[in-house]
Amino acid sequence: MSIGVCLVAHGTDEALIPENKLHLFAHIFMAFENKPFGLNLDKFEDYEQAAKTLLTALFIREKYSRLAYHRFPRTTAKFLRSANNEIWSEEEEVLPDMCPAPREGEDPYSMEDLPQNLNYSLKMKDGIIYVYDNEDTLKQDQPRSLPYPDLETFAIEMSHVLAMIADGPTKTYCHRRLNFLMSKFHLHEMLNEMAELKELKSVPHRDFYNVRKVDTHIHAAACMNQKHLLKFIKDTYKTEADRVVLEKGGKKFTLKQVFEDLKMDPYDLTVDSLDVHAGRQTFHRFDKFNSKYNPVGASELREIYIKSDNYINGEYFARLIKEVAHDLEESKYQHAEPRLSIYGRAPEEWDSLSKWFIKQKLYSPNMRWIIQVPRIYDIFRLKKIVPNFAKMLENIFLPLFQATVNPQKHKETYVFLKHVTGFDSVDDESKHSDQIFTYKSPKPEEWTMEENPPYTYYLFHMYANIIVLNNLRKERGLNTFQFRPHCGEAGSITHLVSAFLTADNISHGLNLKKSPVLQYLYYLAQVPIAMSPLSNNSLFLEYSKNPLREFLQKGLCVSLSTDDPLQFHYTKEALMEEYAIAAQLWKLSTCDVCEIARNSVLQSGLSHQEKKHFLGENYLQDGPEGNDIRRTNVAQIRMAYRHETLCNELSFLVDAVKSEAVAEKAS
Amino acid sequence: MSIGVCLVAHGTDEALIPENKLHLFAHIFMAFENKPFGLNLDKFEDYEQAAKTLLTALFIREKYSRLAYHRFPRTTAKFLRSANNEIWSEEEEVLPDMCPAPREGEDPYSMEDLPQNLNYSLKMKDGIIYVYDNEDTLKQDQPRSLPYPDLETFAIEMSHVLAMIADGPTKTYCHRRLNFLMSKFHLHEMLNEMAELKELKSVPHRDFYNVRKVDTHIHAAACMNQKHLLKFIKDTYKTEADRVVLEKGGKKFTLKQVFEDLKMDPYDLTVDSLDVHAGRQTFHRFDKFNSKYNPVGASELREIYIKSDNYINGEYFARLIKEVAHDLEESKYQHAEPRLSIYGRAPEEWDSLSKWFIKQKLYSPNMRWIIQVPRIYDIFRLKKIVPNFAKMLENIFLPLFQATVNPQKHKETYVFLKHVTGFDSVDDESKHSDQIFTYKSPKPEEWTMEENPPYTYYLFHMYANIIVLNNLRKERGLNTFQFRPHCGEAGSITHLVSAFLTADNISHGLNLKKSPVLQYLYYLAQVPIAMSPLSNNSLFLEYSKNPLREFLQKGLCVSLSTDDPLQFHYTKEALMEEYAIAAQLWKLSTCDVCEIARNSVLQSGLSHQEKKHFLGENYLQDGPEGNDIRRTNVAQIRMAYRHETLCNELSFLVDAVKSEAVAEKAS
Repeated sequence: MSIGVCLVAHGTDEALIPENKLHLFAHIFMAFENKPFGLNLDKFEDYEQAAKTLLTALFIREKYSRLAYHRFPRTTAKFLRSANNEIWSEEEEVLPDMCPAPREGEDPYSMEDLPQNLNYSLKMKDGIIYVYDNEDTLKQDQPRSLPYPDLETFAIEMSHVLAMIADGPTKTYCHRRLNFLMSKFHLHEMLNEMAELKELKSVPHRDFYNVRKVDTHIHAAACMNQKHLLKFIKDTYKTEADRVVLEKGGKKFTLKQVFEDLKMDPYDLTVDSLDVHAGRQTFHRFDKFNSKYNPVGASELREIYIKSDNYINGEYFARLIKEVAHDLEESKYQHAEPRLSIYGRAPEEWDSLSKWFIKQKLYSPNMRWIIQVPRIYDIFRLKKIVPNFAKMLENIFLPLFQATVNPQKHKETYVFLKHVTGFDSVDDESKHSDQIFTYKSPKPEEWTMEENPPYTYYLFHMYANIIVLNNLRKERGLNTFQFRPHCGEAGSITHLVSAFLTADNISHGLNLKKSPVLQYLYYLAQVPIAMSPLSNNSLFLEYSKNPLREFLQKGLCVSLSTDDPLQFHYTKEALMEEYAIAAQLWKLSTCDVCEIARNSVLQSGLSHQEKKHFLGENYLQDGPEGNDIRRTNVAQIRMAYRHETLCNELSFLVDAVKSEAVAEKAS
Repeated sequence: MSIGVCLVAHGTDEALIPENKLHLFAHIFMAFENKPFGLNLDKFEDYEQAAKTLLTALFIREKYSRLAYHRFPRTTAKFLRSANNEIWSEEEEVLPDMCPAPREGEDPYSMEDLPQNLNYSLKMKDGIIYVYDNEDTLKQDQPRSLPYPDLETFAIEMSHVLAMIADGPTKTYCHRRLNFLMSKFHLHEMLNEMAELKELKSVPHRDFYNVRKVDTHIHAAACMNQKHLLKFIKDTYKTEADRVVLEKGGKKFTLKQVFEDLKMDPYDLTVDSLDVHAGRQTFHRFDKFNSKYNPVGASELREIYIKSDNYINGEYFARLIKEVAHDLEESKYQHAEPRLSIYGRAPEEWDSLSKWFIKQKLYSPNMRWIIQVPRIYDIFRLKKIVPNFAKMLENIFLPLFQATVNPQKHKETYVFLKHVTGFDSVDDESKHSDQIFTYKSPKPEEWTMEENPPYTYYLFHMYANIIVLNNLRKERGLNTFQFRPHCGEAGSITHLVSAFLTADNISHGLNLKKSPVLQYLYYLAQVPIAMSPLSNNSLFLEYSKNPLREFLQKGLCVSLSTDDPLQFHYTKEALMEEYAIAAQLWKLSTCDVCEIARNSVLQSGLSHQEKKHFLGENYLQDGPEGNDIRRTNVAQIRMAYRHETLCNELSFLVDAVKSEAVAEKAS
C-alpha cells in the first residue's frame, strides 16, 4: 500500500531521475509515510477525532446516496465496511438505471406497450409526494414502503457536517492531507510523466481527439454559440419572414413585423448588436449576465427563438438544438447534457415540454437531457402564481409520479422521462437569503411568505422527491434520476455541504477552494464536479485563479463543461475550445486531458451500456482494472497512482478509528 | 492636441463616470500634460537630449525604410518633417508594391506577355548583388544607380541606436512615457468603453466574425493542425499505399513499405504517436521543438508529407496546404501568410520551389507567400555545401535578380515572385553566437570560418540585397518585397535594434519587454509586430506573462498569429483559437480584438487594392479619417484616441528639439 513502492514501480527507464535517485525518493517517501500518518497534529487524539468525523461524514453521504440510487465509489465503500469490520460485496451495490440508447431502427418516441396503470394514489405531505397503494390506504395514511426522508433528520445530519467543517483539528488534518496530495502528484509527474506518455503513444488508434467527452453542464437555451444563433435568425428571416411567430396582447406578429417593431433589419444584425456575449461588464454581475439571454436586449427574440412553449410550438428552439446535436453526432466523440427548464408554475409544464420534445423529435444519441429548476419561488409568489412553496414542488414533481404510476394516461411525459437522466437546481448562488435553514424551518405547505427559501431548503426538497420517485420507478423497472445541482459557484460554503449529502454530482464547486474539509471529503467520496473555467472567468473567478488544475492534481473527480457557449465561447466547437484553453494555459498533458474526459463520461447520465462501450467492460471497478486504455487513452500508471493514493488516504482514516477502538477495549 | 479634451469629447452619456466627474478628470489630465511634459527628469537638458536621440533614431529608421520601400507612418513622418521646419507631402511618400489579386478568370500562373530581357549584368560584391547596365560597365565597375548600402555606415548607425538604448536619461524618459501611455489607456477604457461598444453595436452587418483577419506569421510546414496531418496521412495510405513516394539510397519505397519499415500501421496512428505537438517538454527547448517537425520522430514522413522537392514533387505537401487554403476561403474572412523555405544551399532552390508552386497550383486568394531563410550557414559550411557566407547569399538572391532582369529565361521564378510578398529570417534566437557584429566584421566573401555570423550580420545582408532588388523591380514596375524577420523571440536585445533599422515589421517582439527605449521607438514608428502568445507559451514565455495585452494598451501595432498550428493548436480553426484565448484570458473587448485584426491587415502583404477593400478607401490616412468602421468594426473613438495620443507623444519630442534650437540661437 506504500506509495513509495508505487512510485518506483512506475519510474521506468523513461523517468527523468536516475534509478538510484528513484530509490532514494522511495525511501524518503516510505519513511515519511510510516511516521504517524505524516502528520504533526498537536495531539494524537486530535487526529483520531478528525478521522472519526471524516468517516462519519462519508457514512452519511453513503446513506443518502443509497437512498437515491446515486453512485458511491467502491473503494471508499470497501474502506467504510472495513471500518465496521464488515466486508463489502458487489451485491449490496446500488446503481442508477439509465435507459440504454435505442437500438438501430428502434423508435425513441414509441408509445406502444406502455406499462399498466398501478392505480396508486398520490399526495403531497410536507412538500414530498407520498405514494399509497389505493384510496383506502391514503385515507388511513399508510403510504407504500418507500423511503420518505424527513426534514428534521436531514437538518440534524447536515448540522453534524457543518460543525465538522469548522472543527480546528479536522481542518488542519484535511489541509495537510490536501497539501500532501498536491506534492505527491508533483512527484508522480516528475517520475512518471514520460512513462505515461510512452504508454499512450503505444495505444493504437486512440488519442485525445477520439476519446469520448461529455459536456456535463450546458444549458439548452445557450447551447449554440453567438455566431450560430445570429446565422439562424438571419436564415429564418430570409425564408420565413411572413410567418406568424408571436402573439402578444392578442395581436399576432410575423417575423417581419417583429423586426420592424424592433426597428432593425436582420441583415444588419451582428454579434455586437445581438449582445448575448458575456464581457467585462458581467464579472460579478449575474443579473447582467441573465439579461444576456435576450438577443438584442429584446425579450421578443428570446421568446421566439429560445423558448419551447411559444406561438410556433418551440420550433425554432428545437431546430437550433438539433443543429447543435447534429454537430455533436458529426464529431462522433462529443456528447452533451443540456438542461431544459421546469419552473413549477403549473403542472402542465411537463406535458407541454414532453410534447415539444416528441413532436420536434429532439432525441439524439449524443445528447442526454437534464431538467433544471430555477430557484425563483419568490418571483412566483410575488406574482401570486403559487400560494406556497409546496405548490411549486407539487407542480414540479406530481406529474412525474403520475406518469410513473399511470404511463398510459401521461404518454408523452412517460416517454420523455426515458431520455431525462437527472435534475439540476439553478440560480445565482451569491444572492443572499434572509432565511436560515434549520430543523425548525416551516414546512413547504406553510412556506407562504414572499421570501425565497434558502439554498439547502430547495436542495432537500428536490432530493426528497427524487428519492421517492427513484424508488418507485426502480420498483417498476424504469430509469432513475440523478440529482446534479449547480453548487459552489458562489455564495455560502454551506451549499457544498447540502450537496455533499443530496447530490450525485455537482456543477462548478469553486468554493471547495475555501474549505479544506469539504474539498477533502469531495475527494474521498470522489464526487464528480463539472467545472466551467471559461464561464467562471466571465462571472466569478479569473481563469488563472480557477482551482480546476489543483483539484485535478489532488485527484478530485473533475470534468470540463461549457455552461453557456452562447455567452462565453468564440469558436464552432465550444467543448474543444474549453479543453484547448485549459490544456494550453495549464500545460495539461495528454494523460491529464484524457483523464478529465474519462471523468466526464463517468459523471454523465450515459447508460451503463454506453459507459461500458466508451470506458471499457469493467469501468465500475476502481483502479487500473477498471480502465481500458484502448478506449480512454488514460495511462494505467495514472490509474494505479490515483487508486493507490485514494486507498492510502482512506486507510489512514480507518486505521485511526480501529486503533482507537482497540485502545478503548484495552482500557 | 490635449488628450484632456479628447477624453471629454468621447465621454458620451454612456460613460460610467458622471459628466461633472469627467470634466474633473479632464482638468487633472490637462494640468498634468501642461507641466513640462509630465516629466520629472533631473534636468531639463536631459529631457532635451532624450528627445533629440529618439528623433535621430526615427530619422534613421525612416531613411532605411524609404530605401527598401518599407512603410513608415504618416503621422510620425509629418512630425519628423516639422522638426526640420519642413512640411510633409503625400508625394514624397514611399510605399511597397504588391501584386493585386488576379481578377475573375485571370490565370495566376500565366506566363504570357513576360517583360523583355534587360540584358543587365549582375555581380555579387561584399555579399550584395550589384546591377550593371552591361558587360562594359561591369568591367569598369560602374554599377547602375541603385542604393547599395555598405556595412560600415550601417554598423555606425546601428551603434548610435545601441548607445541610445543604454543611455540613462533616455531610458528614464521612455520608461515614464510608456507608463503614462498605459495609465492613459486605462483611463480611456474607463471613460469610453461603453461608448465604443455603442458605436460598434450601431455598425450594420459587421462584427468580429466578419472583419478581415490575417494570420501574419505562420510556417507552411506547420500550417495544418495535428489532427489534419494525421487524417491526411491515413487517407493517403488508404488510397495510395502502393505508390512509390520515397527514394533512399538508390532504393524506391512505396507508402506501404515506408510504414512497414517504421513498423507501424497508419490505422493505429494517433496524435500521440504522431508526436508533433509541443508539450511541457519543449519549454525553453527550441532544439526539441524543431524535432517535432518529424511525424512519429521519423524524418521519412517529414520528407514525404511536408517537403516540396521530394520524390513525389511535393504533391502531398501541396495538397495539405491547399486543404488549409480551402478552409480559409470557406471562412472568407481569414487570410494567412505562410512561410516557405529557401536555404541558400544551391541557386536551383528557387527554380524548384517556383515550379512546385505553379505545377501544384498553390495560389489562393486567401494566402500570400513569404520566403523564410534559416540562419544555418554554419551547418552548410560544416558539410562543405558552401565555401563562404557570400555564396549562400548569392544562392538566395542572385536568382531573384536574374528573374527580374530576364523574366523570359526564368519564367517560373518570375511568376512565383508575383505571389511572394516578403522575406523572413528564422532560427532559434537564443543560440549564442561567438562572433560580434562590428564595422570590422569580415566581408561575406571572407566569411569562410565555420562559425555562424551573428544575427545582425544576417539581417543586414538580407536587407541590403532586398533594397537593391526592390529598387530594380520598382524601375520595372514589378512588385516589391518586405523584410519581416523573426525578431525578439529570445536572445539579445540587439536583435530588435537591427530590425528597427532593417525590417518593415517583425514576428514575436517579446524582448521589447526588456527595453523601454526600444519599446517606445517601436511605438513611435508604429512598427507592426506579429505576436503568437500560444507559441511563446510552449517555447519561451508563459501565457500570463506575455506582453501582448500591455503592448496593445500602450498603442503598439500588434497583431495575432499562430506560428505553428501543427505544434500548438487543438481546434480546426487555429487563428480563431488564438483570438479566442487572448480575448478570454485578457478580457479583450470587441473593439480590442477588431483593432488587432485591423493591425493584422495593415501589417500583411495584401495589396493596396485589397487593403482598401478590407479597411476602407482611405486606410493610408492616420486617425479616424483612415478608418471605415463599417469594414473594420473599430470604433472611431478608439481611432481618435490612438491618433491623438501618438501626436501628443511626437509633439513633445519635436517641441523639445525646437525649444533647444531656439535657446541655441538666442545664446
